[in-house]
Amino acid sequence: MTPSIPQTQSGYGFKRGQKTIQRYDNRKIVGPKGKEVLLKIEAAGLCSSDLHILLAQETYIPDSFIMGHEIAGQIVAVGEGLEDDEIFEIGGRFAMFIPDACGICDQCRSGRDNTCKGNLGDAYGLSQDGGFQQYLLVKNLRALLPIPDGVSYEQAAITSDAVLTPFHAIQRASTHLKPGAKVLQMGMGGLGINALQILKNFGVYVVVCDIKPEAEELAKKYGADEFWVDPVDSDHLPESFDVCFDFCGFQETFDHCQRFVKTAGLVMVVGLGRSKLMMMNFHMGRREVKVIFSMGGTSLEQIECMEWVAAGKIKPLSTLVDMKDLPKYMEKLNKGEVLGRIVFNPSKL
Amino acid sequence: MTPSIPQTQSGYGFKRGQKTIQRYDNRKIVGPKGKEVLLKIEAAGLCSSDLHILLAQETYIPDSFIMGHEIAGQIVAVGEGLEDDEIFEIGGRFAMFIPDACGICDQCRSGRDNTCKGNLGDAYGLSQDGGFQQYLLVKNLRALLPIPDGVSYEQAAITSDAVLTPFHAIQRASTHLKPGAKVLQMGMGGLGINALQILKNFGVYVVVCDIKPEAEELAKKYGADEFWVDPVDSDHLPESFDVCFDFCGFQETFDHCQRFVKTAGLVMVVGLGRSKLMMMNFHMGRREVKVIFSMGGTSLEQIECMEWVAAGKIKPLSTLVDMKDLPKYMEKLNKGEVLGRIVFNPSKL
Amino acid sequence: MTPSIPQTQSGYGFKRGQKTIQRYDNRKIVGPKGKEVLLKIEAAGLCSSDLHILLAQETYIPDSFIMGHEIAGQIVAVGEGLEDDEIFEIGGRFAMFIPDACGICDQCRSGRDNTCKGNLGDAYGLSQDGGFQQYLLVKNLRALLPIPDGVSYEQAAITSDAVLTPFHAIQRASTHLKPGAKVLQMGMGGLGINALQILKNFGVYVVVCDIKPEAEELAKKYGADEFWVDPVDSDHLPESFDVCFDFCGFQETFDHCQRFVKTAGLVMVVGLGRSKLMMMNFHMGRREVKVIFSMGGTSLEQIECMEWVAAGKIKPLSTLVDMKDLPKYMEKLNKGEVLGRIVFNPSKL
Amino acid sequence: MTPSIPQTQSGYGFKRGQKTIQRYDNRKIVGPKGKEVLLKIEAAGLCSSDLHILLAQETYIPDSFIMGHEIAGQIVAVGEGLEDDEIFEIGGRFAMFIPDACGICDQCRSGRDNTCKGNLGDAYGLSQDGGFQQYLLVKNLRALLPIPDGVSYEQAAITSDAVLTPFHAIQRASTHLKPGAKVLQMGMGGLGINALQILKNFGVYVVVCDIKPEAEELAKKYGADEFWVDPVDSDHLPESFDVCFDFCGFQETFDHCQRFVKTAGLVMVVGLGRSKLMMMNFHMGRREVKVIFSMGGTSLEQIECMEWVAAGKIKPLSTLVDMKDLPKYMEKLNKGEVLGRIVFNPSKL
Repeated sequence: MTPSIPQTQSGYGFKRGQKTIQRYDNRKIVGPKGKEVLLKIEAAGLCSSDLHILLAQETYIPDSFIMGHEIAGQIVAVGEGLEDDEIFEIGGRFAMFIPDACGICDQCRSGRDNTCKGNLGDAYGLSQDGGFQQYLLVKNLRALLPIPDGVSYEQAAITSDAVLTPFHAIQRASTHLKPGAKVLQMGMGGLGINALQILKNFGVYVVVCDIKPEAEELAKKYGADEFWVDPVDSDHLPESFDVCFDFCGFQETFDHCQRFVKTAGLVMVVGLGRSKLMMMNFHMGRREVKVIFSMGGTSLEQIECMEWVAAGKIKPLSTLVDMKDLPKYMEKLNKGEVLGRIVFNPSKL
Repeated sequence: MTPSIPQTQSGYGFKRGQKTIQRYDNRKIVGPKGKEVLLKIEAAGLCSSDLHILLAQETYIPDSFIMGHEIAGQIVAVGEGLEDDEIFEIGGRFAMFIPDACGICDQCRSGRDNTCKGNLGDAYGLSQDGGFQQYLLVKNLRALLPIPDGVSYEQAAITSDAVLTPFHAIQRASTHLKPGAKVLQMGMGGLGINALQILKNFGVYVVVCDIKPEAEELAKKYGADEFWVDPVDSDHLPESFDVCFDFCGFQETFDHCQRFVKTAGLVMVVGLGRSKLMMMNFHMGRREVKVIFSMGGTSLEQIECMEWVAAGKIKPLSTLVDMKDLPKYMEKLNKGEVLGRIVFNPSKL
Repeated sequence: MTPSIPQTQSGYGFKRGQKTIQRYDNRKIVGPKGKEVLLKIEAAGLCSSDLHILLAQETYIPDSFIMGHEIAGQIVAVGEGLEDDEIFEIGGRFAMFIPDACGICDQCRSGRDNTCKGNLGDAYGLSQDGGFQQYLLVKNLRALLPIPDGVSYEQAAITSDAVLTPFHAIQRASTHLKPGAKVLQMGMGGLGINALQILKNFGVYVVVCDIKPEAEELAKKYGADEFWVDPVDSDHLPESFDVCFDFCGFQETFDHCQRFVKTAGLVMVVGLGRSKLMMMNFHMGRREVKVIFSMGGTSLEQIECMEWVAAGKIKPLSTLVDMKDLPKYMEKLNKGEVLGRIVFNPSKL
Repeated sequence: MTPSIPQTQSGYGFKRGQKTIQRYDNRKIVGPKGKEVLLKIEAAGLCSSDLHILLAQETYIPDSFIMGHEIAGQIVAVGEGLEDDEIFEIGGRFAMFIPDACGICDQCRSGRDNTCKGNLGDAYGLSQDGGFQQYLLVKNLRALLPIPDGVSYEQAAITSDAVLTPFHAIQRASTHLKPGAKVLQMGMGGLGINALQILKNFGVYVVVCDIKPEAEELAKKYGADEFWVDPVDSDHLPESFDVCFDFCGFQETFDHCQRFVKTAGLVMVVGLGRSKLMMMNFHMGRREVKVIFSMGGTSLEQIECMEWVAAGKIKPLSTLVDMKDLPKYMEKLNKGEVLGRIVFNPSKL
């Protein structure tokens, strides 16, 4: 490895039994072999699912790992198998695709690498080491997505989740999103803020709802045609929306979707607020509604997200801060004091 | 009108407040004007939803009408506006499309006349006069579907619901029904018996489940690759079926569908056993499942159903009996003593 | 009929053997019976295919009929079968759907009434009486499409062809028209001017080409991202466009489409400049290109076109003139002196 | 490497300037490093495009390489990076995916790895070393597709082209291939024999045409519903087929497809008999026909092909012979004396 790369690093991560994020020190930085690369992390986003990981203590994740799943950086070292490679070379700028997708299972070969079956759900920063550190050894080249010119590391990091998740859900709904279509968007949080911007590119009419009245300003700023705390207060008739997106996933938000979706319309469920949702069988049947569930997005869509950011079609809202302040921002997020995305730069911890 | 057509007729129908079907006598037979036709009913099927109508006494239906929604017959008189018409002529054999679809609303123009918006849900035998009588005045020519050679009135009548409903649901699932696809079929009743035959034409592997063990014989006869009372007892892994059809619509049957549908798979809900169904949000999300609701079928699909019957691809199971025995068969149906479909011929009541 | 309706009228039409449009006088105005309506024509558009009809003298059209296929008007009389109808009532404003589509053939029932099989290609103003007169007896109610508020007769008339034809082609291409997609539009004539406006609603990048350099101004005015006389002069790489629309249908324009369409891309052929076009089998194969042919549009799409006009998404370019000047404008059109669409009002001839 | 693997091998391949296949001796067998594997070839199919390569001497291929692009074998050595891998282990049975698809370009990530952009068209046996030898060093793991139980090396080799090419074209046409659909299949050669078997799994009615009358016996044996030398001699009406497959790609065969495809139908062009084909613009337009070009197939589809072979849905016709007789069979193929596929076992040359 080049002399400028240190021997060890510090980072923040999960530790079984601890409900706050833990600091890890003196972690050895291992250099790349074969077709591996060492990525110097330049930006790592903070997501509310980071809070969930700590609180939920799910049994299916390892007992300890470095967290941070929205990751962008540059290659600082490559294995001997990549010495002449023109894509994965030192200095190259890349965002990480969160799922450590294998590339060879049926899902990956079909283009749906967000639901890869090969690596049993392994994901950077969610079940294996991620971005809340300064260097990441990447063994799976297809998880490295080139950042186009004009897109910052900060923006690139955010595309991997906060932008990609709504982008994927919206792309899957696109046959229902002809120009002029009426869209109900439940939720104006971290996903909603990007969903709205993406939707406006389709030329559709977007009615945004959020139980927080203060979301109205943000909704209007990013192009919402209407904002309501409760869509029932609006002039819109039941059964009049082409697509209803539920970015919350509570029974109340899902009920609004069921009420307002029109015949042959689509309800797209993204939010995971509740693990169970009650459906109106007869009323969904009578209208032949489709309910589609969506999770994450594909690596190709993440590449497209970055192209959209480069073209100015999406302007993610974020604040860049020092990674050494990570615990402080984790607390702020917990208290609901964060607007848009917090992104950490790879400062010395 | 031709002299052979009587002045009055009798029939069976709904009467507000009565939970059994009522006999109506001395009903005047009105001849066709303009572009109307008089259809002599040759076959009218009995459906378990006929029982439901009587028991449910829904407020949105009229206080009285002749029931019977699976109808086939021949034209015996035409209005003066059809004198030279080559399609709607005396002697022509037709099945009725149940929804009295308008042909000019958005749904009809788009090809989805099963969800016609124009006539406010009017339907032959369900909210306006139907087939449990000898003559029916038809004002809406597009509801008359020509019966192909080789298809009997008895078969044609059944296509309009017992065949069409599963046909439509299966056609809507067809992008998931490549040859060799694995299908879970919950329910081997009136819809299931035809669903199975239709599915086998797609070259798929069908696992049929029904809580009645005696359904196994029928399932095997009509081509089921496997039969189980409870799919959990089978060797099939959870998350391994391309499509799961729920022809029952109970929480138990829907739960089996949720359990066995694979990633990116489809759950098609047809049965209306329960008006509410609980969905596993996280597990459906993780697998990006689609849940599609289906009701009835289109007039074009009903035409195709009759072509499939003519080609021997579907062999509906039915018994032809005299309409004068209708009350007796209504009781048998209520007791679950009917196998396949009972179809009435237009005997003198 | 109401007293205000005259007994006879004059009109312009085709006469076998005559290469110019002919005046017809003293034509009896017949009142509506049954479910017919009498439409007072308020606007009738002039199309270059009107020239073609006169020059081509095709044998499959009748020896004489009133021309004019872009028609809008109001109902001034209804048959006795429509006395209480709430849609087709006196004063109602309607545009005509050009194909006299039957509504009951397979094509119509499937939603593709632009390729109706039932009426053997009959079409208002193209093979049966059309709009170059003051009154039209309409026997087929489904050809009457309600004009929304805010859309003038002049605009409504144009939607039926000059807007509908590109609208249909673009809707059929819509799965390839995600926001940001690159589109090559060959031709900026009568179809192209509307195509461009429609395309811009999809958020796509449109490169317009036309051999007339003067088309550049119009292209830029209506939102073209680039204009080229010859796309080969541009910076665009071969095999780089998602969709190429050929609104001309000459070998040269089609060759540009074949050259510039990317792998898995779409060439949509609308123009009929040549009846034969040579395809590059190996090069289209290597890239797995789709070539789709398009003609006219459906009645539901025409309704949507009028909604788009009402919403300001399309602003058709037209000039309203007296129908008595029709022969003069026919000549202007022949000389290429017409920009946008000429629409006639129903002036006394 | 294990002692049983020899130091050198012989093979057959292309040599610039030579119009017959050349024998290469004393080629060093290089062992695998990192994540590479050494495949012992057990079966290698002979294809008529092998003849084309020799005769055409295209400039875009290298001056010399080992030919043979239908390849199956077993892993006999793995690089140190795969020592604990559970999929790519010694003894594993694999077929090769012909395109050396990169896995990370847009085409590969979208699931269309048959049109991979990453490796500039490199393909095993077509532009880099292939299967007409005993050992192949494979550097790209995603090109190795596991052979299911019950599928022989001989069958697996053939899936990679003779089965995959029609399979892919048919899958792309599948929305037009509902049970009972009418299909015209032009050509009963190497692709056609498998196409027919694949098509019959969709429950469609297949009319096979081939200019060789002796193809009739084979067509009937593999399930053709009808066979004609010239479809014009049949009772089928023009414009009556849902899909027409052209596995020849000559003007005559394409003209039959244009003539017989119905409104809104599909012509799927697979054969490359001629590099240019003339289309009937007006007649394809009037019927809104789609013309789709197809080439090869995806790796996921090749996996599916092997599953279909395992399930008995496809029974490829082939003869296994010693590779030392390769030049002899090349000559037979040239003379048209080969029925089905010739597959070579890895005999000592």
